[in-house]
Amino acid sequence: MFTDLKVSEFLDALASKDAVPGGGSGAALGGALGAALVSMVCNLTIGKKGYEESWEPLEEILERSEALRSRIAELLEADTQAYANVMEAYRMPRGTEEAKANRKEAMQAALRHAAEVPLEIAKSCSKVVELALPAAEMGNRWAVSDAGVGALLAEAAMHAALLNVEINLSSIDDTAYVQATRDGISAMTEECTRTKDRVQAIVAEAIKG
Amino acid sequence: MFTDLKVSEFLDALASKDAVPGGGSGAALGGALGAALVSMVCNLTIGKKGYEESWEPLEEILERSEALRSRIAELLEADTQAYANVMEAYRMPRGTEEAKANRKEAMQAALRHAAEVPLEIAKSCSKVVELALPAAEMGNRWAVSDAGVGALLAEAAMHAALLNVEINLSSIDDTAYVQATRDGISAMTEECTRTKDRVQAIVAEAIKG
Repeated sequence: MFTDLKVSEFLDALASKDAVPGGGSGAALGGALGAALVSMVCNLTIGKKGYEESWEPLEEILERSEALRSRIAELLEADTQAYANVMEAYRMPRGTEEAKANRKEAMQAALRHAAEVPLEIAKSCSKVVELALPAAEMGNRWAVSDAGVGALLAEAAMHAALLNVEINLSSIDDTAYVQATRDGISAMTEECTRTKDRVQAIVAEAIKG
Repeated sequence: MFTDLKVSEFLDALASKDAVPGGGSGAALGGALGAALVSMVCNLTIGKKGYEESWEPLEEILERSEALRSRIAELLEADTQAYANVMEAYRMPRGTEEAKANRKEAMQAALRHAAEVPLEIAKSCSKVVELALPAAEMGNRWAVSDAGVGALLAEAAMHAALLNVEINLSSIDDTAYVQATRDGISAMTEECTRTKDRVQAIVAEAIKG
């Protein structure tokens, strides 16, 4: 598991020319950082005097941000496997018409999976941004900037994961699938950017005091 | 050192209610991820046939991205110390006028340092975005999206670090220092966002094929 590496080792592995971890895993870690920061704001609020009304709603936010953090860590590993599967299909023989057809079919299936994993990373990141909003609104004032950092990192990680979706979509022949996926992405990114901007406005207001 | 923790342990520590690591360290790790991805694109290009003209310029980019990655890792640790110093000054006695004056002086010095560390993180992140541009322009086409991911994460990390600058600036009494710092920040963020957008345009064009 890449998350069993030391932080410094993970960064070294990312910087190296090895195929994995790559950008998809980097994006996933960005999203996991965002989720962890949302959890931190919840943990700094639940049980704290003066924030009694926030305790129960932030317990629920915490449960969701921790679930997203686990899921994103799984997807970080899944992304490296999805990439390996594409490479494996790419190297299949193409000496006969039958081999070519088999290879093409395997490639299309692998590409689709390799689009779906970063798409789920992106969706998870957009959900982290959604959770950063109540964390910024109801959380400990001393930690409001951490909700802001979480939203910034998770929104960027969503866009980063989507680059890896788009790379794979651009080689998929099923145009209806590609178009439906792109439409879903547009709706998600617009909503996510709006939410991130709301979080930043709350943070800016709170910092001004 | 926090970068000696496993990735999963770092995320757990970030999510916890412990004061450190906090948002500043999260932002630093986002910047380090960006630097590592720029390095990866360089490493996937240098020595690769068909990219001979990129080898030498990307050797220089690689040297700079690796230096930034080291520096950001140092700043990740420094940020936790700067925060601890503010807390220490905050807890100083204020029983007499003299104690109050001493505490105020210590607070102002600690706040200034606690603004300067994330400011250097932000500057380093903006430099990572600058390096992502030649990496996207001259790097291996197969890795162009990784330059895009690097730019997205580093730009968000810059903004994230700046939230931690602003928090501390808002408590600093030296208005000339505060204004000069804010002016520098505006210039940096505008330039950085322009560069990030250029990187994304190159990536989008390359993915379309």
